[in-house]
Amino acid sequence: MAEVRNILFIMCDQLRADYLGCYGHPHLRTPHIDDLARRGVRFASAYCQSPICGPSRMSFYTGRYMFSHGSSWNNYPLRVDERTMGDWLRALGRRAVLVGKTHMMADRDGMARLGVDPVSDLGVLVSECGFEPVERDDGLHPDMSVDPELAYNTYLRERGHTGANPWHTAANSTTGDDGESLSGWYWGHSNRAARVEERDSETAYMTDRAMRFIDQAGDEPWLLHLSYIKPHWPYIAPEPWASMYEPGQVIPVVRSPAERTEAHPVHAAFMRHPDSTLFNRPDARDTIIPAYMGLVGQIDHHVGRMVRFLEERNRLSDTMIVFTSDHGDYLGDHWLGEKDLFHEPSIRLPMIIVDPRAEANATRDTVDDSFVEAIDLLPTFVEAAGGTVERHWMEGRSLAPLLHGARPEWRDHVITESDWSGRRARADLGVEPWDARAFMVRTRRWKYVLHQAFRPQLYDLERDPEEFHDLGACQDHTAVRAELHEVLFAWMRGRRLRVTVSDERIRALPGAESRGILIGYWKPCDP
Amino acid sequence: MAEVRNILFIMCDQLRADYLGCYGHPHLRTPHIDDLARRGVRFASAYCQSPICGPSRMSFYTGRYMFSHGSSWNNYPLRVDERTMGDWLRALGRRAVLVGKTHMMADRDGMARLGVDPVSDLGVLVSECGFEPVERDDGLHPDMSVDPELAYNTYLRERGHTGANPWHTAANSTTGDDGESLSGWYWGHSNRAARVEERDSETAYMTDRAMRFIDQAGDEPWLLHLSYIKPHWPYIAPEPWASMYEPGQVIPVVRSPAERTEAHPVHAAFMRHPDSTLFNRPDARDTIIPAYMGLVGQIDHHVGRMVRFLEERNRLSDTMIVFTSDHGDYLGDHWLGEKDLFHEPSIRLPMIIVDPRAEANATRDTVDDSFVEAIDLLPTFVEAAGGTVERHWMEGRSLAPLLHGARPEWRDHVITESDWSGRRARADLGVEPWDARAFMVRTRRWKYVLHQAFRPQLYDLERDPEEFHDLGACQDHTAVRAELHEVLFAWMRGRRLRVTVSDERIRALPGAESRGILIGYWKPCDP
Repeated sequence: MAEVRNILFIMCDQLRADYLGCYGHPHLRTPHIDDLARRGVRFASAYCQSPICGPSRMSFYTGRYMFSHGSSWNNYPLRVDERTMGDWLRALGRRAVLVGKTHMMADRDGMARLGVDPVSDLGVLVSECGFEPVERDDGLHPDMSVDPELAYNTYLRERGHTGANPWHTAANSTTGDDGESLSGWYWGHSNRAARVEERDSETAYMTDRAMRFIDQAGDEPWLLHLSYIKPHWPYIAPEPWASMYEPGQVIPVVRSPAERTEAHPVHAAFMRHPDSTLFNRPDARDTIIPAYMGLVGQIDHHVGRMVRFLEERNRLSDTMIVFTSDHGDYLGDHWLGEKDLFHEPSIRLPMIIVDPRAEANATRDTVDDSFVEAIDLLPTFVEAAGGTVERHWMEGRSLAPLLHGARPEWRDHVITESDWSGRRARADLGVEPWDARAFMVRTRRWKYVLHQAFRPQLYDLERDPEEFHDLGACQDHTAVRAELHEVLFAWMRGRRLRVTVSDERIRALPGAESRGILIGYWKPCDP
Repeated sequence: MAEVRNILFIMCDQLRADYLGCYGHPHLRTPHIDDLARRGVRFASAYCQSPICGPSRMSFYTGRYMFSHGSSWNNYPLRVDERTMGDWLRALGRRAVLVGKTHMMADRDGMARLGVDPVSDLGVLVSECGFEPVERDDGLHPDMSVDPELAYNTYLRERGHTGANPWHTAANSTTGDDGESLSGWYWGHSNRAARVEERDSETAYMTDRAMRFIDQAGDEPWLLHLSYIKPHWPYIAPEPWASMYEPGQVIPVVRSPAERTEAHPVHAAFMRHPDSTLFNRPDARDTIIPAYMGLVGQIDHHVGRMVRFLEERNRLSDTMIVFTSDHGDYLGDHWLGEKDLFHEPSIRLPMIIVDPRAEANATRDTVDDSFVEAIDLLPTFVEAAGGTVERHWMEGRSLAPLLHGARPEWRDHVITESDWSGRRARADLGVEPWDARAFMVRTRRWKYVLHQAFRPQLYDLERDPEEFHDLGACQDHTAVRAELHEVLFAWMRGRRLRVTVSDERIRALPGAESRGILIGYWKPCDP
């Protein structure tokens, strides 16, 4: 099969699957992303491996479940010897380049032990998931800890925005009725426009930066990870996106009073987080969500720019384009804000793949309902770049068969994990960090969540698609829970922790005898 | 509590627990090891984490289960970023030194990726479980692949043994009736003496080497891993040990015809290995086992020398002495040779610990039946050296409370794992390398073995202490199997794969707010 020359891997941050036109949003207009879906395959059942930026991304970048790579929350470092997307693709002759966010935290202890200098070329790659950091920007820059060298701030200053941290005071702040500056850290300010022009906002800036790289790369093949910071909070959009949507276009909240009366203790603890209780304000969703929609619309606009840019350079025919997100956003559903837990708004991903190869012509403009996981992208990229998927490291499956219209045997469930040891709920519930963990399996019909320190949760997605009724303690569902419990155990037994030896190498291992080691021989004449 | 200054960590290779006087052997005389048991605590229920040299030792050296460290068979490399005994003890001011065998295979791919030169000081430590290799000798040196620089061969040549490989032709060969040389690779030659003097045999040589290190170390505190190669095959003992025991002193074989008629497929496949069928010869055990007993007696003799040596240097009062093995040897029991599977002769370890501290006086000359695992030694050493057991890496528990007479809550089961992907049984059974794995849990009453690709095994150790009756398919024991199955799942969920962050660090993590990241705030005036 022909190789794909370039891979454009676009990721949004905290973009719910259902906040795109092609995924059924009734009001949000995303014509360019919808166009990608027409050019390729839209996966309707794609899931993150963890509904938190850091661990989700480490799964994308390693092709491994969170349990296996171990970087289970934001800023919990990725072990220095985990192989990453950059490692695998660079070995296949692609420049692997980052523009935007990864949430990677380098394993400084591991690097120090092995003498890897963080500022060496090697140290930088190891610290950046193997990507050349053309521009690394994780998108959250509080005044008290902003990097004085932040490139985006330098850019904003060149564009006339003064101050120590125009990321905050210009791009992520807005203007009050009296002309005063209002910080985007406060979500009550989300219904006003950013203090930057559209073309100077983060999404525009990162798109420009990616285009500049593509032009600079010339004929070198690449994997470009264009990783947008939005629509993650601060929920501040520039005009015209800030005014694009109005409260009347906000889709209804998905929550039921019943959810609060007998809430699972972990769900209940998360309901008490300020990012959740804030959505109990009657004006919260109408203030925040139009901005969120505007930020998505803006990303759509720049995706369109990028596609035209590639078209003008005759790169559409040899570039695979992927559009996805790291996880969703509750936005008040299930009485929750943020993410962390396992309801669909949190764990379901948008996932569109445009494969330029002729083999993919049969599937263009189709929707594939197969269960897809974040860890499938790396094997997909490796296959597209002509490589072999090393299954002792990569736990996902190449999506090439699905993209090319085959009907392979496919998984019948997805796995998502959550480590909430870093969240307020842990202290609230009085559990040790180690016990603040949960494992989810979702099948076509069921969703089962196994908590380390609490009773399980169970949802019947056929009868209760909104996930209002937790059957985790219901006597009638003992057998279903037991079956899904065993699915989780079987999954866990299969984790690829024997990473230093492949099955292929084991099959080819010479026996001990070939090295002269005799085992179980009696006498030379009497073997 | 006072620290222990030095740690002498003696390991034998393939020494069954029941082949020592103090563990109840009726004929084998091990007065010096028995004396250690009188000076300290003899653990009667100690188990290896895997009944194979490599993975068992990697568990000893990392303090982690095989599932966690991933080095699951001989020569499957230990990932380069696993922390090892040498790392931890050196950080506590002890020279960590190896004399003898580790079966460590360096992770050359991982080292190359991170720029670690294998011949640098760092590279050597990383390649040797963190030990300074005063003398690394894994003990198997076939003529076709012997290291021309092997120190023991140089020594033997100095002692007058000529040839390319006197390890084989002198130390591990014997002499036939006509004066001809007979190779120890053939187990039928085991009832004749080695062609070296006792003082030039491997056990004597390694003991001398260890003593030389101790004298050279002077006042520097150390952890010395004296890792004997015997009584592992080649089963060739020097005189007087070769003639010390006779067939009449061999304890009866433990096997039942019933075991063969309805054998579990994996057990059956291992019964067909040549190292197993060899024991079907009527003369096999009488030929081999007296030599095995002689090799154990010889180790005992040198342990006695070592204790006297330390006594003469006034080191007994500040040196912890540990005596153990990496796994057992079937020696024909259960129709098997070698090890690999989960019967007691294979997985149970001798484990004697002499703690010189006053706190341990109350437990001297006692037997402790607590379930001890190989992974407990590293935490025990770290505690003894005044360090903190880092539980995000180390999965074992310090034995100090048991050594000091406390009665802490303790585990009620042990775990042993086996990866037999490298053994002939795999091809014989037609399974993929990845499926050639099994997990065992042993409680006081039961032993349950979960096979990846076959039905489980179950033994009732109360009614069937000899493990003759496999209840793995018995309808009457469904509930017991389910319970033990869940014990294994709970164990697996607890594996420490989030190695880059400790619970302590998580508890102390500053909240996002302390860095200026506000989550879920509405307005400054209305938080």
